[in-house]
Amino acid sequence: MIKALLSVLLVLAAVTSSSVGKPGKYIPKGGKRLPQTLSRGWGDQLIWAQTYEEALYWSRSRNKPVMVIFHLEDCPHSAAMKKIVSDDFDIQKLLDEDFIVINLVYETTDKHLSPDGQYVPRILFVDPTMTVRADITGRYSNRMYAYEPSDIKLLHDNMEKAKKLLKSEL
Amino acid sequence: MIKALLSVLLVLAAVTSSSVGKPGKYIPKGGKRLPQTLSRGWGDQLIWAQTYEEALYWSRSRNKPVMVIFHLEDCPHSAAMKKIVSDDFDIQKLLDEDFIVINLVYETTDKHLSPDGQYVPRILFVDPTMTVRADITGRYSNRMYAYEPSDIKLLHDNMEKAKKLLKSEL
Repeated sequence: MIKALLSVLLVLAAVTSSSVGKPGKYIPKGGKRLPQTLSRGWGDQLIWAQTYEEALYWSRSRNKPVMVIFHLEDCPHSAAMKKIVSDDFDIQKLLDEDFIVINLVYETTDKHLSPDGQYVPRILFVDPTMTVRADITGRYSNRMYAYEPSDIKLLHDNMEKAKKLLKSEL
Repeated sequence: MIKALLSVLLVLAAVTSSSVGKPGKYIPKGGKRLPQTLSRGWGDQLIWAQTYEEALYWSRSRNKPVMVIFHLEDCPHSAAMKKIVSDDFDIQKLLDEDFIVINLVYETTDKHLSPDGQYVPRILFVDPTMTVRADITGRYSNRMYAYEPSDIKLLHDNMEKAKKLLKSEL
């Protein structure tokens, strides 16, 4: 009787394991994909926030400003800025040590992050007091938060400006 | 006169290029880091949404439900579920072909994603009509959206349930 029970159990176990444990890792039909990175090429050595809320949380808790980069994967202007920013030793070091970083390919619902419209590439700074630094701008009056590769020095200066934190009114 | 101007320009160019073009890629003081992935280990072959808003956008435009995974990197229960989910061929295939996926280590501001509290691991499904499927639950009455590794079959069944889309009331 016990033997019979045991063999039923064994059969059950075999059926269960064969239907649950499939061998092999899943590979998509189109072939193996490279894992997506949070940096999206803007600096693989930096620690990127995934969401804006997360960036704000880190900003407040570490008392560091946020640099928010809006870009698009298939935009040549974004790609050109990305290359310049990711290759620039000083900017990467500054971002790593003194900033919370986030790059977004989708707009957020926060209107403060598009003071003069939604375009890419667009770079905004946010103070740990959660104030968007609309005063820190690039050189184009029609797209105030746009930067081109030749503006890398201005971007660096603006990062230094963002590092000088606003006084909290609390 | 022209010669003198030219040499001034050359000196200027040399000064500019030496101050801008620093050699070498930035490496943090603590040593080189592995680039962060959007999958965070829940399936490197899947295409992950970065933000919940992005996931909802994809969900509507592709008419696929969203599977939202809340987890924490240093939570052993999350880690155990992650291993089971990422190793399961059928679940990965189903997620890749029929779902929009997002995994979050920070809570969103959307209260609908925490019907019975904020805990991890927690898995919720969202219909393309943007309705959180609070009816699709695990087996724990005090943490209705929690799953353990032994619940993998139930998770699979719940995914099939989520695939049966709600009718839009529009």
